[in-house]
This record gives sequence, C-alpha cells and structure tokens, in this order.
Amino acid sequence: MRIEIADAVDFARGAAFLGTGGGGDPYIGRLLLEQALRNKGPANVIPVTDLDDDALVVPLAGMGAPTVIIEKIIGFGEGERVLRALEQRLGRKATAIMSAEIGGLNALFPVAMAAHLGLPVVDGDGMGRAFPELQMVTFNIHGQRAAPMVMGNEYGDTVLVEADDNLRVERLARPVVVPMGGLCMLALYSMSGQAAKACTIRGTLSLALGIGRALGAARRSQQDPFAALLAFLRGTEYYRHCRILFDGKIVDLRRETQRGWAIGKVVIEDLAGRENLEIEFRNEYLRALRAGRTVAIVPDLISILDRETGEPITTENLKYGQRVKVVGASVPPIMRSERALEVWGPKAFGYDEPFSPIESTGD
Amino acid sequence: MRIEIADAVDFARGAAFLGTGGGGDPYIGRLLLEQALRNKGPANVIPVTDLDDDALVVPLAGMGAPTVIIEKIIGFGEGERVLRALEQRLGRKATAIMSAEIGGLNALFPVAMAAHLGLPVVDGDGMGRAFPELQMVTFNIHGQRAAPMVMGNEYGDTVLVEADDNLRVERLARPVVVPMGGLCMLALYSMSGQAAKACTIRGTLSLALGIGRALGAARRSQQDPFAALLAFLRGTEYYRHCRILFDGKIVDLRRETQRGWAIGKVVIEDLAGRENLEIEFRNEYLRALRAGRTVAIVPDLISILDRETGEPITTENLKYGQRVKVVGASVPPIMRSERALEVWGPKAFGYDEPFSPIESTGD
Repeated sequence: MRIEIADAVDFARGAAFLGTGGGGDPYIGRLLLEQALRNKGPANVIPVTDLDDDALVVPLAGMGAPTVIIEKIIGFGEGERVLRALEQRLGRKATAIMSAEIGGLNALFPVAMAAHLGLPVVDGDGMGRAFPELQMVTFNIHGQRAAPMVMGNEYGDTVLVEADDNLRVERLARPVVVPMGGLCMLALYSMSGQAAKACTIRGTLSLALGIGRALGAARRSQQDPFAALLAFLRGTEYYRHCRILFDGKIVDLRRETQRGWAIGKVVIEDLAGRENLEIEFRNEYLRALRAGRTVAIVPDLISILDRETGEPITTENLKYGQRVKVVGASVPPIMRSERALEVWGPKAFGYDEPFSPIESTGD
Repeated sequence: MRIEIADAVDFARGAAFLGTGGGGDPYIGRLLLEQALRNKGPANVIPVTDLDDDALVVPLAGMGAPTVIIEKIIGFGEGERVLRALEQRLGRKATAIMSAEIGGLNALFPVAMAAHLGLPVVDGDGMGRAFPELQMVTFNIHGQRAAPMVMGNEYGDTVLVEADDNLRVERLARPVVVPMGGLCMLALYSMSGQAAKACTIRGTLSLALGIGRALGAARRSQQDPFAALLAFLRGTEYYRHCRILFDGKIVDLRRETQRGWAIGKVVIEDLAGRENLEIEFRNEYLRALRAGRTVAIVPDLISILDRETGEPITTENLKYGQRVKVVGASVPPIMRSERALEVWGPKAFGYDEPFSPIESTGD
C-alpha cells in the first residue's frame, strides 16, 4: 500500500479518531505528512509479514503535551537525528519505521519520516489507539525493551536512556520533556522483524485511513458521517463494538498542562439540558460517566467529534459551547487481555473500578 | 602523592571545608574512600602536568540533593558503570580520573574510584570549592564540553546526554535526578591531558588534605583549630584572604529539598544575643549578610564550622542551637575573572548585587 498526498486529510482524520483525544493536533501532523509526501513521493506501507525475521524495525514517536504541539511544530531534523543516534548505538541501520501508537501525530509522523527517509513503514502499531505513557504498548507486554531509547529536540540535543524496565524508562524520560521544550522525538522499542510479527497490532494504518475515508466520503456526499463511521467500524475486527454514547454540547471544561501532559475533564450536556456526560482525560479521553455510571473506560476508545461534520476533536482543541457527539468503540482483543489491562486498564490510570467492555455498558 | 587510609579523615574534613556546606556529607564520603583504600590500596594522586597531552581525563561526580546522600549511599558500581558507558561512547579508555569539584563527596568519590579502578587521579579540580550546577566549572569557561555526559544509578539505569551547550546539559540532566532516586553518578567533561593542563585548578586535592590536617593537628594538640585553619589558608595561593566572619549559635533554620537541591537559610546569633548573621544556601552557602550588609558572597567561600572542634558543617547537618563559627575565604583568582563571574557570580544565583571580594568587606 502507498500513502499519497491525496490520502493525507483522510489518514489524519482517522488517526485523530483513534487518538481518542490525544496524540496531537491532526492538522499539524497532516501538514508535516503532506510536506514529506510532496518532497519525497508516496510512503511505502508494508504488512508486518513482509519483514525478514532479522530486519531491524524502529518505532518513532513524539513525546510531550498536545497543548505544546500546537505551538511548536516538530520537524524532520529531530526525527532523523534520533533514528541515526539509535542506529549508531545499535551498530546497524533500520530496515523499516513503525508507529508506536496509531493516534494523532504519532500515526502521521512515522509515515512522514518513512517518506522522508525512503524507508518502508509497517502497517501496524503497538496500541490500536493512543496512550500517554511509554510502557503502554503491546511491545512491552510481549517483553520487548523500550531502551535503548533516544530523545531529541530541534536544538540537536539528544538523550539516550538505558534501563531494563520499561516503566523506569518512562519515569526517567518524562521529566526530560520539559527542558527539551515541552515536546521531543523518540526512537524506541527497536526490535527484530520476528518480534514485530509477534507483537504488532496489524493493519492499523490501513484502518486509520479507512475510518478517515468513511467520514470524508459521507461528508462529500451529504450523508450522516456518524452512520458511515459506525458502519465502517462494525466491519472491522478490532473496533466492531461501537455506538454513539452521547449527543450534546460542551458546558464545562477544565484543562491543565501538568508534567508534560494535558490533564482535565469535559462535561457535555444534551441539547434538551436534561442529562450530562462527563469525560476525564490525560492526553487521551479515559472515562465517560453518565449520571455517575461508567459507559466507556480505558482501554476502549472514547472519541469526541463535531456533531455536524464528524471531525474528531483532540483534548487541546475542546472549546466551551462546541456541539459534539461522543463515540465509544472496542479496542483490539489483545488490548483487553488480563496482562494488558494491568498496564493500561482503569487501575493503571488511578481508577478504582474494573474494565467494563463497551459492549456491556449499553443502556 | 598517595592518599592512604590514614589520610581519609583529614582529607574528608578539608573537602568538607571547601564544600562550603555542599557536596554531601563528608562522613559518608569518608566511609566510601576508606573502603576503597582498604580493599585496593592507596590512591595515586598525580599533578596535572604529569599527563600526556593526548591522555583522556574523565571527571566523575555525584549529582543530587545532599539531603538524599545521607539516606542513600553511592556505591562503586554506578561510578564504574558511568565511566565505562562514557568510554564506550568515546571509543577509548580513560587515562586518569579527575574531580569536578573539590567539595565534600565530590572530592572524595573520584579518589575512591581511582583507588578502586587502579587509575591515577589528578591533583586538581574545576572549582576550588563546590557549586550546585554542572556548568559552574572552569572547564566550561575554557570551552570544554560537559557532554557526552553519562548519568547512572544503583539499578543500572544510565542516561547519556548530548548537547553542545553546557547550560542545556544541566537543564536536561537536573530533572532526571529525581527518577534516578534523588542522587546519581556522572561522568562528564571528558578532556585531553592538554585541555586539563589549561583549565584545571591545580593542587586542590593536596590543599584539601592540608586544610584537614591543619584542623586535625590543632585538635589533637589542644590548640585553637581556627587559628590553625587561618594560618594554613594564609599560606596558600588561593584561599589566603580569609577571616572569621561570625561567632554564635544557630537561632533559625529553614531548609527544603526542591528540584534535587537543598535550599534554605540559616540565622546565627552572637552569644551575647546582640547581632545576627544570615546565610542563604542552595546546596552550598551562597551569601552571608550581617545587619543587611553582605560580608561574603559567592564565589568566595563561606564555611560554617563547629565552634569547639572546627569540624565543617554541611547544609543538611545544620541544627537549631548549634554553636558555630563562620569562616570566609577567597577563591582561586581564576574563579573571580569577569567571564567566570558571569557563570557563578552573584547574578547567576539570582542576587542583584555585584561580587564583593572577601578582602574588601572587612569591618
């Protein structure tokens, strides 16, 4: 598969949906992607099964607060720098780029880098969505090591983190984001082709593009974008349990940038003014409560979309008075295993309740 | 020169004096030094002029809050690990160890590591005292780069920082100290023998030992330790402008651990209860005010010592009611140049006053 300039808008929109509020402003990511595709031609997207077992796959990602991404655009320089620094540390060249999270900028950036560098990018990622911490990837629960990990910024600074525990890598790296400028690029979880085949959530670049295309086509043909979105999701293996959780307007919004994260809460009221849905977030939307009852919770997907256009809205773009619909969807089954839920289930985010699959929380 | 077990107490005491309150508890450092000397024999201390021009000199240091050092002893493992990681990055072996600051633990640790590793340690350092930030060394103002710099802790985690500006290295590294455990080891400012000859403050290991011996000998022979200390300092090239700034007891003490530093203020009242001396600190004692007038200010040395024994007291060991004498002394002339004062003069610590040499602030 190739991703071309004509795909950029749809791909960015689909990635924003899967970003569940996080992963950075898709508009910024789209500009970056379009620039790479214009200058270097289409990106070559390959199935993970095309990799040789001894290939070297390097996931690339941005780390920082989405609220900063709006003001400070990431460039190709720091992406290439962290990749080269990691290659030097490993003593070999990367065979392919991969996305660690198929949400927002972190879905788009690896594709842009792949085009820029003339390397293939794997059709897959480590979440099937977006998450705020480095250890929250399937790579981790399959025993892959985040380190050696290189962080880099636009000044040419790099920081190489080595620790054998992925949570420690997160703890060591997080506070560096602020002096890096609030946002930096990462090369991490480098792995063999064999390992990538074992632990990647397959086909998620294609799925992001499909979601974006479904929404875009509906809008162009004056159809209901939500009907098109749900129809597409129901045809997928991963996201097929899905529904509209709420329809209303934003009546309350609290948002702070803390320790490099966008943390807060948004309250949506139905248009008749009778009922509320409250959604908590930390970069990503984590839990949706209706009259105090959980209707969707991490790791299942919660997305807030413009109620007319179906455009996904990231946490840093939420505004008081916006009219929105909230969509919930299941994550890939691998993301719901007991071992997986220990790393990114409700408890990992401080919630004192078990995971409730979206298909079990219906009215 | 060799530093042997019999020297450890005096060397630690002299290093504590030059640490001006910072650099970590000398007792902890002494235990570490004694352990290394007992197991591996004396440390070989060489003049910087003995180095070949193409030698590789690696300063080693601890970074963190002195308040943490009391509770978490640094071991040889992390010191060796950061050195080996830096050697690997540079592609060559260290010829000699050096101290970045001849204050407290950071004076003792490189000597202990030299004994442990069987490498010589240079008789000199980059401050002639102690300072709280990485760019505050003569190496920096002579154009040497702190990076590549390796940080390491007892868990085997390492972080390699690369930045071409030494202040950025400080900014990137400082927040990593907390997840490292509040304290970590560093290998930084690696340089050639030629560079070391140009920018090292020479002879400061010998001076630390001399200061400690002067104090120790006076105590053993029931002489006034302060008379012995001042007599020794007056015979040195660096510290010859010196005097007792105050004599009294501690009547107020505020101390917090903030961002990895011990920050606070101590007030000393004379025994007649008529006058106060107020001393502000950030790891090190920075400014001494008598009735609102500056009587000593960074980079000149301010040390607080037990008024009976002459034992130097570090900021984390200050206690309400302690009876103390405060000694001020000049720093080496190279530390007072205009360029030097830009990096560690009063303004670098947020003071809105120029540097006043200790010899100009007398009554």
